[in-house]
Amino acid sequence: MNFLTLLDYASVLVFALTGALVASRAQLDIVGFAFVACLTAVGGGTIRDLLLDRHPVFWVGEPTYILLASAAAVLIFFTAHRVESRQKWLIWLDSFALAVAVSAGTGAAMELDKSPVIVVLMGMATGSFGGLMRDVVCNEVPLVLKQGELYMTCAMAGAMTAVSIKSLGMTDDLSALIACAVVCWALRAGSIHFGWHLPVYKSRPPRS
Amino acid sequence: MNFLTLLDYASVLVFALTGALVASRAQLDIVGFAFVACLTAVGGGTIRDLLLDRHPVFWVGEPTYILLASAAAVLIFFTAHRVESRQKWLIWLDSFALAVAVSAGTGAAMELDKSPVIVVLMGMATGSFGGLMRDVVCNEVPLVLKQGELYMTCAMAGAMTAVSIKSLGMTDDLSALIACAVVCWALRAGSIHFGWHLPVYKSRPPRS
Amino acid sequence: MNFLTLLDYASVLVFALTGALVASRAQLDIVGFAFVACLTAVGGGTIRDLLLDRHPVFWVGEPTYILLASAAAVLIFFTAHRVESRQKWLIWLDSFALAVAVSAGTGAAMELDKSPVIVVLMGMATGSFGGLMRDVVCNEVPLVLKQGELYMTCAMAGAMTAVSIKSLGMTDDLSALIACAVVCWALRAGSIHFGWHLPVYKSRPPRS
Repeated sequence: MNFLTLLDYASVLVFALTGALVASRAQLDIVGFAFVACLTAVGGGTIRDLLLDRHPVFWVGEPTYILLASAAAVLIFFTAHRVESRQKWLIWLDSFALAVAVSAGTGAAMELDKSPVIVVLMGMATGSFGGLMRDVVCNEVPLVLKQGELYMTCAMAGAMTAVSIKSLGMTDDLSALIACAVVCWALRAGSIHFGWHLPVYKSRPPRS
Repeated sequence: MNFLTLLDYASVLVFALTGALVASRAQLDIVGFAFVACLTAVGGGTIRDLLLDRHPVFWVGEPTYILLASAAAVLIFFTAHRVESRQKWLIWLDSFALAVAVSAGTGAAMELDKSPVIVVLMGMATGSFGGLMRDVVCNEVPLVLKQGELYMTCAMAGAMTAVSIKSLGMTDDLSALIACAVVCWALRAGSIHFGWHLPVYKSRPPRS
Repeated sequence: MNFLTLLDYASVLVFALTGALVASRAQLDIVGFAFVACLTAVGGGTIRDLLLDRHPVFWVGEPTYILLASAAAVLIFFTAHRVESRQKWLIWLDSFALAVAVSAGTGAAMELDKSPVIVVLMGMATGSFGGLMRDVVCNEVPLVLKQGELYMTCAMAGAMTAVSIKSLGMTDDLSALIACAVVCWALRAGSIHFGWHLPVYKSRPPRS
């Protein structure tokens, strides 16, 4: 199993946990948990594979991903009530999932020798679309677009880090992908914990 | 015309009727009816074909599907006001569409000799994504995720029935697909009529 | 650069502007503006390319589209507060984007010699899905489905115009596509300005 596959597994596992947590807020049954967990877990990578015409789509070729995501859903179904603050767990787990998924997407696009812009976009898409589908389907305000927090910015910064390191020829792909995940997660964690953010658009006070 | 094609046509027709009923609740014009009907009718099968890299996508290769869905939309546009309870019709039509579409998805994946996990998932995806898009686009609470009802569970049980029957070598594919539709519909009907459901997740009473 | 490519660029630019305007209503930061702008700008064409199995997807093969959409987002981020009525700008820009994107989608499907029904549908899908994703992700009521306005009808009329002109052999593709954009835009403008609309579905007054 190479490093890219490992990243895919890690991102599937952690995103599945976040999907199941959102399902718990919607009070679904165990099959609903598994459905939302799988959608969240493989959503971003599926979009990436379709856009890049990589077939079979990663989980179609290797169903273990789905079993892993379903197992995570079952785990959360029976244990989430023991968790003190599900919202807090959700946000932190999502931050790890984001970092790992951005790396996985960036790595997959690099392997296909795509141009830097496309590599960064594939990292961003892989990181964000799973969570976006989870939130749209479950009627939550998408974390991706939450006001006054860094989210897509972290994904972009992480993917750009990997691209820069690689294009400078400083190191191998593996280190570039690790740097990507670290930068992405650090920014997201700073935004959650310290409130780091970029200026948001403000209309003039007397809004017409 | 083989049996799989027949299933595709049946699922397109019935899902189109449900799409048009939802459009009637949103008070759209006749083109809006046709749009929502087509989206609902071909949505699930399109996702299935893209994921399995089956090209041309079933309705791109054979536009009759679209004409059928549009005709269903026109029919509903002029007759829905004569129906006593559109919500009731919607739910029951949707149950038939689900059963038929799950069969169609399961059959398509079986034909490509996919592994059992993927066959079950393709059945579930084909059955659910059309209705899911319909509800997300029209701002309805997705039927798929309605609390305290069986929905994805019916799809899963149906698809699993087909896979089991086939792997036991008991019979031909056709009978397996009919069994799939019957199991799926019976469970869904039981859930609608008798209130069958699985236990749903409940957080502890004093929710923090 | 041929005419089809030009249409793709024009539609990307104008849809990106509308995406950024919606982002300004959601008060996102500059990366959020770029994300929504790109999603809106390339969403419809991406669906078209996936459905028609045209690879690489137009913007994956040519990242300039993404840079153009991002530049449009930055422009709006710094200037939208100077605009008197963003809603009005949004609606009119969206009408231009619709007309151009319908042409682009129609042209792409014609080039692949698809049947008339598919050509019309690809025009409609390319024109509508970018805006639909923008509105679903940002929690706005989809313009596509706004009650009492022509929208999908304009897309359909435009695409049908192109198909008719072409099938009559009256002229070359280029003129057919220009006619498509003109018809589509004129209908949409008439609907916005003069309130043109089709009868909408009305349930009986005492709704059960």
